[in-house]
Amino acid sequence: MASRVYLALLHHPVYNKRGDVITTSITNLDIHDIARSSRTYDIEKLYFIHPAEAQQRLAGDILSYWQHGYGATYNADRKEALSIVHIKNTLADAVAEISSVCGKAPIIATTDARTFPNTVTYRQFRMEMEQADSPYLVLFGTGWGIERELMQSFDYILEPIMGRGDYNHLSVRAAAAIILDRLLGQKWW
Amino acid sequence: MASRVYLALLHHPVYNKRGDVITTSITNLDIHDIARSSRTYDIEKLYFIHPAEAQQRLAGDILSYWQHGYGATYNADRKEALSIVHIKNTLADAVAEISSVCGKAPIIATTDARTFPNTVTYRQFRMEMEQADSPYLVLFGTGWGIERELMQSFDYILEPIMGRGDYNHLSVRAAAAIILDRLLGQKWW
Repeated sequence: MASRVYLALLHHPVYNKRGDVITTSITNLDIHDIARSSRTYDIEKLYFIHPAEAQQRLAGDILSYWQHGYGATYNADRKEALSIVHIKNTLADAVAEISSVCGKAPIIATTDARTFPNTVTYRQFRMEMEQADSPYLVLFGTGWGIERELMQSFDYILEPIMGRGDYNHLSVRAAAAIILDRLLGQKWW
Repeated sequence: MASRVYLALLHHPVYNKRGDVITTSITNLDIHDIARSSRTYDIEKLYFIHPAEAQQRLAGDILSYWQHGYGATYNADRKEALSIVHIKNTLADAVAEISSVCGKAPIIATTDARTFPNTVTYRQFRMEMEQADSPYLVLFGTGWGIERELMQSFDYILEPIMGRGDYNHLSVRAAAAIILDRLLGQKWW
């Protein structure tokens, strides 16, 4: 049985370069790229979490253009990808919606460059998802990472993606694509 | 022994939506995202192939800002990622440079949604790269795909990336990240 998997991109509370808790802006290409990757890996919904009404409206306008405006006729594949995108005020709102649809709260996993007591490998997490019948929410931070206290409330931390060598600064768009492929892609290996 | 692997993004000759051979524009975020992914997977060089001088100059300005301008001090990680990016007039120029550095011509692979006589799986291609001592060039098209005749000159076509289901419209940034992870990532499975 295929797990119901949700994705979310968190714009608040996250750190800036100096360690202050801030709110980052929504990036147009995050919406497009992560929606296309999410749709390819059959994600139920992709949430963008942002507390500011102006940013929610901006994201709403982008979605509307590709869903109902000229974009929808120009590129039907894009329309389909963006149909799974939803904007929420807070992470709690997204979790509440998933819980209500699925009848149980999602198991939440995020990524971090550091190792925690609840760090899991991709193999472990993929196997758990294949067997469990809970919904899953894979959460991505923006800026310089998710605020510490919120971070500690998650069920799992996925281990950092290592390439070859020790440079490890993927964009969130690239990291999300790789993680979707590791967790949900065909077994190509 | 680790293979010397090169990446290239081809802006000409590619098709547009109607099947005409065109030249696409260089996208700022392709440079950043694919450079960061390439550096993470220890790619030797990432080439952007574009025949127009104005586009070459634009890309050169972006690189220069992050290599020598304010960007270089603001974000040293980005400077390091962009240090592997080079702009070339034609694919032949990139191939000639690789051949001259490595002492032999690269084996060229690209991706396509269709299956060809020389289509390989990721597993086959990864194993070959682990054993061979040739340089490899993994090439990505832009627009609606690489022009047919050029396409037939490549050594291998990598099979399409399938997620779950039959929607398959990844951005080139996401596809490049996933392919790098499949070909060169740590064995996480």
